[in-house]
Amino acid sequence: MTVTLEDIRAAQRLIESRVSRTPFNRARTLSSITGAEVFLKFENLQFTASFKERGALNKLSSLNEEERKRGVIAMSAGNHAQGVAYHAAKLGIPATIVMPIGTPFVKINQTKEHGARVIVDGEGLSGASALAHALAEKENLVFVHPYDDDRIIAGQGTIGLEMLEDRPDLDALIVPIGGGGLIAGIATAAKGVKPSIKVYGVETELYPGMYNAFKDEAEPAGGQTIAEGIAVRVMGERCLPIVKALVDDIILVEEETIERSIALLLNIEKTVVEGAGAAGLAALLTRPELFKGKKVGLVLCGGNIDPRLLSNVILRELSREGRILHFAVEIEDRPGVLARIATLVGEGGGNILEVFHNRMLTHMPAKVAELRISAEARDPDHARDVIAHVRGAGFKVREIGAGGV
Amino acid sequence: MTVTLEDIRAAQRLIESRVSRTPFNRARTLSSITGAEVFLKFENLQFTASFKERGALNKLSSLNEEERKRGVIAMSAGNHAQGVAYHAAKLGIPATIVMPIGTPFVKINQTKEHGARVIVDGEGLSGASALAHALAEKENLVFVHPYDDDRIIAGQGTIGLEMLEDRPDLDALIVPIGGGGLIAGIATAAKGVKPSIKVYGVETELYPGMYNAFKDEAEPAGGQTIAEGIAVRVMGERCLPIVKALVDDIILVEEETIERSIALLLNIEKTVVEGAGAAGLAALLTRPELFKGKKVGLVLCGGNIDPRLLSNVILRELSREGRILHFAVEIEDRPGVLARIATLVGEGGGNILEVFHNRMLTHMPAKVAELRISAEARDPDHARDVIAHVRGAGFKVREIGAGGV
Repeated sequence: MTVTLEDIRAAQRLIESRVSRTPFNRARTLSSITGAEVFLKFENLQFTASFKERGALNKLSSLNEEERKRGVIAMSAGNHAQGVAYHAAKLGIPATIVMPIGTPFVKINQTKEHGARVIVDGEGLSGASALAHALAEKENLVFVHPYDDDRIIAGQGTIGLEMLEDRPDLDALIVPIGGGGLIAGIATAAKGVKPSIKVYGVETELYPGMYNAFKDEAEPAGGQTIAEGIAVRVMGERCLPIVKALVDDIILVEEETIERSIALLLNIEKTVVEGAGAAGLAALLTRPELFKGKKVGLVLCGGNIDPRLLSNVILRELSREGRILHFAVEIEDRPGVLARIATLVGEGGGNILEVFHNRMLTHMPAKVAELRISAEARDPDHARDVIAHVRGAGFKVREIGAGGV
Repeated sequence: MTVTLEDIRAAQRLIESRVSRTPFNRARTLSSITGAEVFLKFENLQFTASFKERGALNKLSSLNEEERKRGVIAMSAGNHAQGVAYHAAKLGIPATIVMPIGTPFVKINQTKEHGARVIVDGEGLSGASALAHALAEKENLVFVHPYDDDRIIAGQGTIGLEMLEDRPDLDALIVPIGGGGLIAGIATAAKGVKPSIKVYGVETELYPGMYNAFKDEAEPAGGQTIAEGIAVRVMGERCLPIVKALVDDIILVEEETIERSIALLLNIEKTVVEGAGAAGLAALLTRPELFKGKKVGLVLCGGNIDPRLLSNVILRELSREGRILHFAVEIEDRPGVLARIATLVGEGGGNILEVFHNRMLTHMPAKVAELRISAEARDPDHARDVIAHVRGAGFKVREIGAGGV
């Protein structure tokens, strides 16, 4: 292996006063939901809200005077960008960050605020990466890779040391995989300190790059994922052999499970994670039998979720839980009918959120309109009661699922 | 005074293994925004997501065997309910909770989940309180007041001890005021340990109960506040003299500042607070000159915000920051016009969120329609650029403020 436990211990000594030692806390309610004894590593509480600072600082600190003067360049859709920009500024190293077109505004702004030169260009990570390499060549900058670098891997590995220092009795870890730097570092640290520990990786099923490499499969990759932090196609060449040697299995999770996990962490733990940060919990929800009764550490690797996306996740979860119900009522198009239906919904304890009149449904008579209502209820049983109450007054009600059909 | 520093130290010894010692962390970005050195006490990370557990547990532990057998009753819109229900269940004491009509569903459900008998009845806190007192009499239950009780006050005071143990160099504390239990306890603890510390209270301007009592004024109380946890009209009789003797001043904050504070804590600190939990930051934003350069402790007293409300707060903040722009375009009502405008917005880098056609504006010709667009931009400057780009193509654009006018 190119990265050793000693490299990670050295990284720990180097970065410990300059990145946060994040909390590693037992999550009681999530434990009772999943059947495992769950511990959460709050890397979303780093100053730039992700673990990427660890590797970035370990790498930047290794540069010599001449390299520091030339400056560094990095390509990243967000968290690595912020980690590099923040610590480069603190070390007085000029930093250029290339971010792909379509990077969420919040991540572009935050990277600029750390004082880096930000260039938004290139289609996807591969396009931006090509541009960054070209610019590194042209301007003689030191390229700081987001994961395929021994110093980066060793920096991320410090999370594994901290978790096992805090809880030496852990049975298993679940670690999100983008390019593989985080899990390569953590697996090296954890198995180095405690060979019996199990280390599981997790990827969204839309981007099963490491899963394919690990299992010698060829599942397709692509699509819009809520976990853009782990939407990586090309695994790190230096990460791959470490993962193959040390990781016990890789779990693929559905997008919906990641979404639910973001909402659970927000509602129960009162903490904000981005999609990748929720992937570990999603894996636990997907494969609970693997972890039943075990002490499991999850890495909440980042908290940089676009606020608008977070707002959508909250509302979608309420719909999914049956706490927002959607239904259509066939009504006569005359005064007082909306008031009547609104009264019925209110009597049933439902709180109307949205009303939409549709008068252009030609399969119905011209004097009939369809009223679409979204309303809030306490739970799915209560939602059914509300609809039954409207039906009980003689109205024709069609329930509409959370999917809108 | 009826509550002493020694009472609070006794409460601390009693509850320390059964409630969380919550983190008290420096907030770097909020410090640079406000000009103070800000420390946050994360009481929203208690198991039931509020400080109320401290007082409830201290009170419940003081009951004798006979009282425990009879059972307890409490009236609360939420956090006190959960604190009492949770610790009563752990101590094996039967608990009845009366919650006013209109209490958010999430709080009702969570209280039920702790195993309490929940009765949702009574208009507002005073209506529910009257019902709870009547039921206490009828069923011979011990009434656990949410704030007007020495044991409750002493329990909440333990927060003050913890803050000063962690940071003996604090200059000031800002504490939300509902009925006054929290600030009475914290002020007693803090001034007992460090007489030179300043203690400020904060209320929403909609419910200035303590402000009125403190300053002998008669500002009206009422209205819909986002901080329902501190929407209290009747101050605790046992709290009032303590507040008058020990608190330095009371700051009133606007609803909009509370909303902004919730969003700041979510976006920057990655933590979920309810309205009352954000009131301390709102006070700091309202009166920054009082705290410039000072070490200030804020109590994030609770995290139980209704998810739908939180989702609204996020979106409203984006509108307020100019990151969601709203505008109306006068268009000819013919094929291709929407595509043309959508293209212009996209070229400008704006992300369209909502489109609404209005064809019934009779002050415009029948063949002209108004297109209303909501779109996302990076910042207010960028929003202006997007609108300028649409105007530049010859369209008549009317900007609509975040208020919709």
